[in-house]
Formats: sequence, C-alpha cells, structure tokens
Amino acid sequence: MNNLKIFCDARLPDNAAKLLREGVGPHELVFPATLAASVLGKSGLDPAFAQVDIAFGQPDLANIQLSTRLRWMHLTSASFTRYDTAEFRALATARGLAVTNSSSVYAGPCAEHVFAFILAQARRLPSALQSRCANDSPEWAKLRYACAPLCHQNVLILGFGAIAARLVELLRPFEMRITAFRRQARGDEGIPIVTSAHLPEALANADHLVNILPQNADSAHFISAELLARLKPGAILYNIGRGATVDQEALLAALRGGHLGAAWLDVTEPEPLPDGHPLLTAPNCFITPHIAGGHSNESETLVNHFLDNLRRFLDGAPLRDRVM
Amino acid sequence: MNNLKIFCDARLPDNAAKLLREGVGPHELVFPATLAASVLGKSGLDPAFAQVDIAFGQPDLANIQLSTRLRWMHLTSASFTRYDTAEFRALATARGLAVTNSSSVYAGPCAEHVFAFILAQARRLPSALQSRCANDSPEWAKLRYACAPLCHQNVLILGFGAIAARLVELLRPFEMRITAFRRQARGDEGIPIVTSAHLPEALANADHLVNILPQNADSAHFISAELLARLKPGAILYNIGRGATVDQEALLAALRGGHLGAAWLDVTEPEPLPDGHPLLTAPNCFITPHIAGGHSNESETLVNHFLDNLRRFLDGAPLRDRVM
Repeated sequence: MNNLKIFCDARLPDNAAKLLREGVGPHELVFPATLAASVLGKSGLDPAFAQVDIAFGQPDLANIQLSTRLRWMHLTSASFTRYDTAEFRALATARGLAVTNSSSVYAGPCAEHVFAFILAQARRLPSALQSRCANDSPEWAKLRYACAPLCHQNVLILGFGAIAARLVELLRPFEMRITAFRRQARGDEGIPIVTSAHLPEALANADHLVNILPQNADSAHFISAELLARLKPGAILYNIGRGATVDQEALLAALRGGHLGAAWLDVTEPEPLPDGHPLLTAPNCFITPHIAGGHSNESETLVNHFLDNLRRFLDGAPLRDRVM
Repeated sequence: MNNLKIFCDARLPDNAAKLLREGVGPHELVFPATLAASVLGKSGLDPAFAQVDIAFGQPDLANIQLSTRLRWMHLTSASFTRYDTAEFRALATARGLAVTNSSSVYAGPCAEHVFAFILAQARRLPSALQSRCANDSPEWAKLRYACAPLCHQNVLILGFGAIAARLVELLRPFEMRITAFRRQARGDEGIPIVTSAHLPEALANADHLVNILPQNADSAHFISAELLARLKPGAILYNIGRGATVDQEALLAALRGGHLGAAWLDVTEPEPLPDGHPLLTAPNCFITPHIAGGHSNESETLVNHFLDNLRRFLDGAPLRDRVM
C-alpha cells in the first residue's frame, strides 16, 4: 500500500506524540492549524483535510463532507454523538468510509468509575467520610446498618457495549443478578438481555440502574419521569452515558420525593451545572465532572489503540471498535 | 446431648432475637441483667454466667475465669483483642474451652469497604465529587489524568485471613499483583505470601498497602515510621484492622511529607479522633468511623453463623472460625 496521509487533530503530550510519529512508520502525519483542546473537543475547517486518507481525532463534519479521499476515521472518544445521524451514516455508506471509535480505551476506566460509584454508595462513603460518630452511638448503628451488601442485588444496565461488558466482569465476584437493556439482543452478551417489551418488569426489580446509553435521537430523556416511577423504590441511578439521556426535572423530583435512593452522575446537561442548579443540592445526588473515562496513561492508550487499528487497516483486516 | 444453657449478651433486634430463640431449639437461652450495647461492647460480671455451657456475644473475662462449666464461646466480632493474650490462651487450653469468632460474617462487608476505598482513591472521588470543573479546563485534565487504572498495580495485604481471602476474590478481575504478609505461610493462600525477611522488598514495590492486622502485642505500631519509609513513594495506605497497629505520628509525617499518596482509615486510635486531631486535616487522609464490618442484615447473619456453629458443636463437628 502506498504511503498514506493521516490527519491528526488530537492534542497529545510529548510521549504520546512520539509514540504516534514512530508508530505510523512511512505514512505521513498531517496536523491542522488548530488542535482540538481534548478528546471531547473538535477542530475546525481545514484545507489540509482534503488531502488525507485517514483521520485520527475528532474530525470536523464539514471537512469530512468536502473530502473525496477519506477512507477511514478513528475517533479519540467512545461517544460519536455528532456523527450518529441518519445523514452521516448515509454519507459513510455511500463513500465506503469506515468509522471506528476508542471505546476499548475507555471501557476499563468507565467501568471502574461506575463501579467506584456503586461501592461508594453501598458503603455510604459520602456520609461516612463526614462522620465522627462514636462506636455504639445511635448514629454509628444507623450508618453501619445502612451499608448494603451487594451480593444477590439486581443490576439493570441500559446500553450494552464495551463498558457494560467490562462492568459485568468486575461485578462477577459479587454474585449480583445482572440484566442489560438493548434494542436488540445479539445473543453473545453473556447475561440476560431485555428489550423494550420487558423493560418495565426489569425496572421494577432493579436495585441499581446503570445508564450507559449514548446520546442520539432515540435516547433523549430516555430516563423519564415514567421510567423513574417504574423503578423499585429506593433504587440507585448511576449515569456515565450522556446527560441529555436524563430528564433532569424528573430526576430531581424522584430524589426529592425519595422514590430514588440516590443518583451518581458523571454527566449532566449542561456540563458543568450552573451555580444554583437544584441538582447540586438535591438529596443523595453525587456528581463528578465527566471524568469516567480518564486515566493516567490515556494519551498513550489512545495512540496505541489507533496504531493497532492502523495495522489492521493496512492489512485489510477487520477494524476494532468499528461503529459504521 | 442434654439440654444446654447458652449465655447471650448480644443486643439483638426483634427479628434476630426471634431467629435465635427458634434456632436454639430445646436449649435454654440465658440473658444477663445488662446487655452489651453492640458487637463492639462488652457486658459485666454476672452470676448467671456460672451455670452456662456456651456463651454467645462478648463474654466478660472475669465471668469466664470464674466458670467451671463453659465449653465454648462464640464472639459476635471478628476481632478478639481482649482474649488474645498468653494468659487467656493458657486458660482456654487448660479448660478445653473452644473459642470461635464471627470473622465469616464480617469478611464480605470488610472486603467491600476496603475495596470501596481502593476504587474511590483510584477514581479520585473525594476531589471529583467537590469539583465542577468544565470539560477541557486545566483542572479537568488534571483530574482525569490523576485517575489511576488498577490493572497490573501491586497490592500488599498485611494479615491474611477471611477478609483478605475475600478481597483477593473481589480484586481478581483487575489483574492486580497481590501479595500478602503473614508470620508463617500455610501454603493454601492462593497468592504469594511474604514473611518478615522479604517484607522490605514487598513494601518497596507496593502501590497499595492494605492493613488488616489484628491488635495484639506483636502488632502495636507495626505500621511504623521505618515501615512507611520503605514503601514505594506515592503508595496508598488502607487500614481496616485496628488503629493501634499504626504509629499515627509517623503516618501524619508521611502524609505531610508526601511520601504516602493517601491514607484511607476505618480505624484510628482513639475512636473517634478528638477535635483538632491533626489527622482530621492531614492531606489526603480519609476516615470512616469504624463501619467496615457493618451491613444491613448484620444481626441476622451473626445469629445464623452462631446457629450453624451450634449445630456443629452438638454434632461434635469442627467449628467454623475457631481461633482457640
């Protein structure tokens, strides 16, 4: 295969940039005038884009539309919201454009983050870390008895992909009953899958509801007042998907009314929530600032994942984490 | 076997008391004038104790010494500090007194608690839950990159018993390198065991040091300035054993100097720490108030564990969690 041009708009620290330069071998890296600020950022229109065969980063939609050469784009994020439209899918199909994302890179950290939420809730860390109650005091007994053993509790996961698959592995030693909701079961999930028809029943049994749904036209406000009302009283909601999949007014009401035991959110709408937003002071609402995918060697794992896919692309082998 | 008398000084809620009454069958329960306030409490001298064959709870040392009938005592705690002396062991041996504890009851919750600590630290929950940093901001990047993937990190556990065994199970999906320190390896631990000779080397490699040592003459201030200095820089200390096993002055210095990355403590000396104690405001020091063993169905699991051992005792079978 001739030498290819690879557009890279990811802002990489020196060690990861070196890894990328060395890893692409004879192929040429092309950088835009403006780099995306981070994996969640996006770069702008760039004339150099018209000459490239491959894009690595968060390529601009207008650049992609104008290109007649682009054959594969690899996103530095697990989400691909801005490309997840009928129009873009039609364009990708018509052009033979392959689209991959970095879900393998973020699956582990995201699963660990939601698992940290689950355990922090089970062991009542937010209250416990604030308390200096004395052994044998009524407050102490209350705190000890509030701790909930996870064994045999029911977990319902909304959205089954790489993160959910890793979460299922992490939860295995706890012998929890895990079910996932997916539009269509593929049969290879390794856990029971419910589709829309049986979702109400699954919600009624859920002690823990883990939302990993991506953001698209179907998922907007999927966590609605009606869905929350169907949940088992006292259930806990965890959201590491996207903020827009939750009706936050309904969430607030469910927390204030006590029907929902707690909410642990890594994502909100907007991010961050503005001063005085009622979720910031809602009872049992715990929020982290969209860091679930973060990890100390993030840039290196992103580059290594891209390079692995580059080898596959050059060999004509199936790409990992292909979404279109 | 004739009907036996069972002294019970545990303060049990109604459902657990009913479970106990029904479970002992024809055997007679004897209650003291004063019940222990909790599983960490102790009852006082009681003349009724002289007539019993079995004690369930936290029996008073003077009562035990005066008894000529007691054949088995089952403690409602995992720790047995007040009985763990050469004098008491000699008395138990001379009288043929069996001593069991409730370590099986607390192993799961204690392992979950320390695991919650490990994950909360890895995902930087204390900082993240306080932050409303914006996506792409420098603070956000710092927080994301501070999150430490657990995979392939080194864990050193001090003290190998039921809690450690359960912790090893819970950590398995993370593929961490787990080693335990034990005075003598038994060979059935399923993980590498280091004894005193190789402890310095294990400390130098440890990313996570989990202290589950019981409190006794050998373990006082086992976590000393010297031990902390041998730890890998930036290592994290977790303590769910007993506060007295840590030299808190040395701990404070290691946290202030930054050699220790963080300390997560469920136990301190004393409990709770008094107002103004320097550990309360030490950097990266996170304290819960001795709740690691707590769980919502604690009283029932304690009673069920005792009843299981009672059946074994009546059948002449080996007792579970026998410590003497």
